[in-house]
Amino acid sequence: MNVENVDVPSPSAATQSLREAANRESLGRILAAEPVLIDVAPAGEVLPGFHEKLILTSGAPLAWSDYVGGQRRAILGAVVFEGLAANLEEAERLIENGDIELGACHDHAAVGSVAGVYSASMPVLVVENRTRGNLGFCTIYEGSQRERLTYGVWNSSVESNLRFIRERIGPGLGSALRKLGGIELAPIMRRALRMGDELHSRNTAATSLLGRAVAPTLARVAAEVPAADDALNYICGNDLFFLHVGMAAGKAIADAAWDVPRSGIVTAMASNGSEFAIRVSGLGSEWFRAPNPPFHGNYFEGFSVTDQAYMGGESLIMETVGFGGLASAAAFALRDYSGGTPEWMIENNLKMYQITAGEGTQYRIPYLGRGCPTGIDIFKVVEEGVPPTMHAGAAHRDGGHIGAGYLEAPLSCFEQAVKRYRAVYE
Amino acid sequence: MNVENVDVPSPSAATQSLREAANRESLGRILAAEPVLIDVAPAGEVLPGFHEKLILTSGAPLAWSDYVGGQRRAILGAVVFEGLAANLEEAERLIENGDIELGACHDHAAVGSVAGVYSASMPVLVVENRTRGNLGFCTIYEGSQRERLTYGVWNSSVESNLRFIRERIGPGLGSALRKLGGIELAPIMRRALRMGDELHSRNTAATSLLGRAVAPTLARVAAEVPAADDALNYICGNDLFFLHVGMAAGKAIADAAWDVPRSGIVTAMASNGSEFAIRVSGLGSEWFRAPNPPFHGNYFEGFSVTDQAYMGGESLIMETVGFGGLASAAAFALRDYSGGTPEWMIENNLKMYQITAGEGTQYRIPYLGRGCPTGIDIFKVVEEGVPPTMHAGAAHRDGGHIGAGYLEAPLSCFEQAVKRYRAVYE
Repeated sequence: MNVENVDVPSPSAATQSLREAANRESLGRILAAEPVLIDVAPAGEVLPGFHEKLILTSGAPLAWSDYVGGQRRAILGAVVFEGLAANLEEAERLIENGDIELGACHDHAAVGSVAGVYSASMPVLVVENRTRGNLGFCTIYEGSQRERLTYGVWNSSVESNLRFIRERIGPGLGSALRKLGGIELAPIMRRALRMGDELHSRNTAATSLLGRAVAPTLARVAAEVPAADDALNYICGNDLFFLHVGMAAGKAIADAAWDVPRSGIVTAMASNGSEFAIRVSGLGSEWFRAPNPPFHGNYFEGFSVTDQAYMGGESLIMETVGFGGLASAAAFALRDYSGGTPEWMIENNLKMYQITAGEGTQYRIPYLGRGCPTGIDIFKVVEEGVPPTMHAGAAHRDGGHIGAGYLEAPLSCFEQAVKRYRAVYE
Repeated sequence: MNVENVDVPSPSAATQSLREAANRESLGRILAAEPVLIDVAPAGEVLPGFHEKLILTSGAPLAWSDYVGGQRRAILGAVVFEGLAANLEEAERLIENGDIELGACHDHAAVGSVAGVYSASMPVLVVENRTRGNLGFCTIYEGSQRERLTYGVWNSSVESNLRFIRERIGPGLGSALRKLGGIELAPIMRRALRMGDELHSRNTAATSLLGRAVAPTLARVAAEVPAADDALNYICGNDLFFLHVGMAAGKAIADAAWDVPRSGIVTAMASNGSEFAIRVSGLGSEWFRAPNPPFHGNYFEGFSVTDQAYMGGESLIMETVGFGGLASAAAFALRDYSGGTPEWMIENNLKMYQITAGEGTQYRIPYLGRGCPTGIDIFKVVEEGVPPTMHAGAAHRDGGHIGAGYLEAPLSCFEQAVKRYRAVYE
């Protein structure tokens, strides 16, 4: 900004000042969000614009022919799971004929884990952002077994687990949440950051705190709701259960910051099988796309880079609102799971402050004694040449979870977004 | 050690070699311990050598006239709570007349929190060290309210809370533990260290993990055990609930390492109202005493150093087995509660390796990527001039919890112990 002309700003200084004000508005909405887990209900009943013959999947939308590998298998599996087709071949024909529609999770207030498929009967976690009243959704964590629909596997054990979630876990947890009047998630997320979670690759603390919050009620309603015991066991037995709760919260937080004219704050980062893409608050529904970036990290024993394939994923919503790779110094214990040293985690975390609009007021990183870097600014990313670091799981090309590590968002997405921003606003 | 004479060791080299072997034996027993929380039962039924007219308290034993302030009030309160006297005056007469006996917790396989009083009907957590079969005990955490018997307060609300613990929490939790066949504590403590606990001043993660471990069973037995819901609420509602579980485990671990001839490893550190004292594995039941050291840390709002008084405490058992102040770099979040910077926590933690016999094999500190410094060696403490750092709570002179911080164990205790060791063994 030209300080000498501060009283009569030049057009570009005025433009920048307007952008900064808009960025502050987006940032303020992220910081002020109060996500509350209020219910679990079938996707078809609660997701906006959902219908019986709709399947959602992760990432910027592609033509059907461009969905390959695990993401394609997951979409087809969801069609069969929903009872819309008897088998994958029939599912394929129905999609090709246009009898079944595909949609992008982000267009339905939802985010998808890895392949990220939704069908109408799948129970979804419902998070309300009490500050603005908007909702965010995510499916329920499928468990830690390697083979899951979200990781591109469709077989009888995957199906039977999804049925168990639909028939037992969803109803039991939903019932407890309604009796509790919802569970405030900000206190849990705030405390989890003090307990070694960065809320993306590590959610052990948040899951434990959620378990503590619901256990007494789930225990009390156990007699009235037969599935309550299963729901309690499920939460208490899965360290990453909270990840999907956090994702629903992340979506409710990010959507609140979306659609602020002139805001250059990123409000979605997502991957499909072939592309990474971002959305920006002031730039509507447009996706700015680039090829998926390389994965850095640890493969679980018996797997290597040659086994890996991309199949999409929207858990990057956590980074979008200031967690995960933007809070890497909160989770030193990830050195054993995802690789990396504490020194790298600290250095990376400090870099993230260079590309964000502000710092978390509720959410803080104990080692740094600072709020989480929050609100990725497309202009700062481009000017600093520093891409957001995103924690991620690695998927096997034949399906399954085989590693954990991090990605760097492609700078090209941000460059395209800046270019479009300038065309629209400057 | 004189390397040139290694084949024919000089008497002192031989002595040192025997000491090192004994230290390794003590260390090995600490590292190999497998504490399991197996039951909750009245102190009078399970503590060795307990009887109806015995009251235990923290620290090296004193003459009755030397117990003052909060610790004296707690002892008298316990007599009344037990129904042995109608009021504190009568309790005082009974103790003076010798109708009621006082004992030291450490002589009954137990450790006391702050004033640390035990009476026969108080429910105690029972931890078995499965490796050697010995038991360790601790009373149940009284809650986070400022006024507690352990912090030297006796009034009707303290009494009513103690009754609630005796009638509801103890029986409910005991019943669940018996149904579960016990809960292994090492996995919880191991994970808690990865979640920002150092297991003394911070136990939020361990409490949450314990809650997760017992909740499904407590929920299942809720119908059979009316107090199960209270027990579940109590655990889920108190971040420091695990502290007393950890203390019982710490005692079971430390006692396993005790009474190894020639071992110079510390197996107890404890305070009474006026003295700090240590016991050493190879030196039997003797306490090596010195005046209580100064407290460094944060006072809660409205309190200052002038409000503070010592009233004993044996939660230092956590440091004795490698946690708390010996694992300060595990709990950066304590900066807000107890004061201190991450830099100090790391520096302090690294110093603790200078005075310990080895490193934890199960218990590790994520930031350092090393096992916890374990097994305080009296010779190393004296040679290095580095006292063990111990996390601690601060008590008000009129009773109540008013702060958190750390103490440094007085070097004089270790010097006395070295002197006695030399007189006995060299």
